[in-house]
Amino acid sequence: MDHSDLPHKDWQLSERARKLTSSAIREILKVTERPEVISFAGGLPSPATFPAERMREAADRVLRDAPGAALQYSATEGYLPLREWIAARYSKDGVQIRTSQVLITTGSQQALDLLGKVLIDAGSPVLVETPTYLGALQAFSVYEASYVQVPTDDNGLIPEALSPALTQGARLLYAQPNFQNPTGRRLSLERRRALAEFARTSPFPVVEDDPYGALDYAGTPLPTMLSMAPDHIVHCGSFSKVLAPGLRLGYIIAPEELHFKLVQAKQATDLHTPSLTQRIVYEVVKDGFLDEQIPKIRELYRDQCEAMLSSLERHMPEGVTWNRPEGGMFVWASLPKHIDTMKLLEASIEQNVAFVPGGPFFADEAEAHTLRLSFVTVPPARIDEGVARLAALIRERL
Amino acid sequence: MDHSDLPHKDWQLSERARKLTSSAIREILKVTERPEVISFAGGLPSPATFPAERMREAADRVLRDAPGAALQYSATEGYLPLREWIAARYSKDGVQIRTSQVLITTGSQQALDLLGKVLIDAGSPVLVETPTYLGALQAFSVYEASYVQVPTDDNGLIPEALSPALTQGARLLYAQPNFQNPTGRRLSLERRRALAEFARTSPFPVVEDDPYGALDYAGTPLPTMLSMAPDHIVHCGSFSKVLAPGLRLGYIIAPEELHFKLVQAKQATDLHTPSLTQRIVYEVVKDGFLDEQIPKIRELYRDQCEAMLSSLERHMPEGVTWNRPEGGMFVWASLPKHIDTMKLLEASIEQNVAFVPGGPFFADEAEAHTLRLSFVTVPPARIDEGVARLAALIRERL
Repeated sequence: MDHSDLPHKDWQLSERARKLTSSAIREILKVTERPEVISFAGGLPSPATFPAERMREAADRVLRDAPGAALQYSATEGYLPLREWIAARYSKDGVQIRTSQVLITTGSQQALDLLGKVLIDAGSPVLVETPTYLGALQAFSVYEASYVQVPTDDNGLIPEALSPALTQGARLLYAQPNFQNPTGRRLSLERRRALAEFARTSPFPVVEDDPYGALDYAGTPLPTMLSMAPDHIVHCGSFSKVLAPGLRLGYIIAPEELHFKLVQAKQATDLHTPSLTQRIVYEVVKDGFLDEQIPKIRELYRDQCEAMLSSLERHMPEGVTWNRPEGGMFVWASLPKHIDTMKLLEASIEQNVAFVPGGPFFADEAEAHTLRLSFVTVPPARIDEGVARLAALIRERL
Repeated sequence: MDHSDLPHKDWQLSERARKLTSSAIREILKVTERPEVISFAGGLPSPATFPAERMREAADRVLRDAPGAALQYSATEGYLPLREWIAARYSKDGVQIRTSQVLITTGSQQALDLLGKVLIDAGSPVLVETPTYLGALQAFSVYEASYVQVPTDDNGLIPEALSPALTQGARLLYAQPNFQNPTGRRLSLERRRALAEFARTSPFPVVEDDPYGALDYAGTPLPTMLSMAPDHIVHCGSFSKVLAPGLRLGYIIAPEELHFKLVQAKQATDLHTPSLTQRIVYEVVKDGFLDEQIPKIRELYRDQCEAMLSSLERHMPEGVTWNRPEGGMFVWASLPKHIDTMKLLEASIEQNVAFVPGGPFFADEAEAHTLRLSFVTVPPARIDEGVARLAALIRERL
């Protein structure tokens, strides 16, 4: 829209607001709403996996049996039965997670906002993977974090790199050990052990953000770092990828000392997560539904991933490399270094194919020749068509 | 719980987190969950007013007709038909509110958090009423605001007091013109005009927080300041008091320049408000339901208010004064100056009567002999019993 007719408001913004920029991903998503666009950009879970009927029954039951409570203000910590369910789900093989460690959040993004609020001062060093999740960079940047990139390879973050010089003064280390967004990488078992051990004595929390852990195609997940050091790891989980993201329901499991501060911060932020959505989700999950649901999502995404990988194999020219994820929603690709994927995207959008350039996922020293491909929203036939068009554009630039 | 068995985590917290304290109100509310307590403490709307059946039908319709969209990620700005509905509702008598001014928030509390995020730096002056809404103090304190109290009287904030010396460097002025929490006061028409005029040229926004505007007992609401200066006022609204608070659904109407920054901040905060609750509320309100619903709530609260006022009249000793609100949920009372209501509360809780001491509502120079009485949760017979017990305790202290 044209703003020239609006009064110019020269209200002074906060320092952090002046630095805020829109997420490149969200801006691209706006373009990809056009139905003719084959979008590998969004991390949108496939609506085919949403248990709509079960949600509808649950909503009906909640609003019939407990409307007063479902529509009333409720505790900042979250709906107690849901918190108990989460604690119980993480308590197995001798590991004990206490309900008093669990805080329900308005989606995983709020978990990151609250952690930033409670841990980061302007200029505080924050350790992140190379590359890392863009949403975390956005959340922590509001609190004016100063990022320190921790080296990674195909097995994820390299714990040996966490030297005193690198970690000096850090307020937190942020990692996605399972099928990381954007790379799809999984942190190896030995490295989990090393990082959990590091967390036991480190003067700052290790945050294990785990939205994709359940989407392990072989159904043989590696243990969480939380299970290795349950009183030392801050674990973030989400119902977005196993039920539905539009509910905005996530949680933080943290040592009580930090939990209490997070609760205070949440009180000031939105009082509590909607009572209604919490109760609906509890109704849906309480009798073991996720154990039916998760294998179906895994199977669908594994097939989609295989379609993407075989299309890449079929169409991509030499000089393009990518990984073979064992779970999650993303493939990470590298092009020859002279190809800037931000520019490639402009040409690609003209061909009605979208992806996310890799640059914005780096806190520093962006690798501009990388890109993220999501395979969960587009059916296999269109995946092949989209990859073919993208490959043609890359070939033109070789 | 006993924490002595937990590992001591000496993780360094942010400056703001170290200053965070729990809301006195939330701590008191925990005590008042006991059914034997007659609670004038909570600002909990009466569940008798929740349109549970209509919510249930709406949830059913949304999850039957549009499950894919209701359960998927959606735009940060909010559900477009709901934003359009809000803009249309405020567009009357020649005033035009644009949909592009409307941002849906996860409750009104999030509106305050986002405004703080975008406008307040550590130490920034923030103008507030004397006393003011505790939730606003909590939200803005996270951003380390430095409060400046603006004088008020029974007609609300005194615009003449906004001298250059008082407003110097301010980032925002925060006011609740309708049936303010905690005082129940309403800003007079002339003062609304004066403050709207002030907003036209002031170098910082005037925030009109209006959760209680619809709860005007006579059904003759005063015009909002937004309607007087639609491109200069930041208006916060909520569905909590007219539908149900457990949905956590509010909105900010702001000039586009500020709106865009608020959207960016919200993206980093929780991506978007739950798609499901937004669509349910739109289904409930789109055909004019609030025009049936609001008069019923007004009537109920007016009766409750009258019950409270006549009980106060009947039982309170001389030296106790209170106002006669024309709407909303609260009566504000003053005791003789030597009575500290925080101490009175301790005795009162032993008698199973709860209220909120006035002190925490002052940004500065608290008037410790004041208290807030909510009359919306307790039925008239119990109101009388509770007021009688409270009056007896006050009489003992005279």
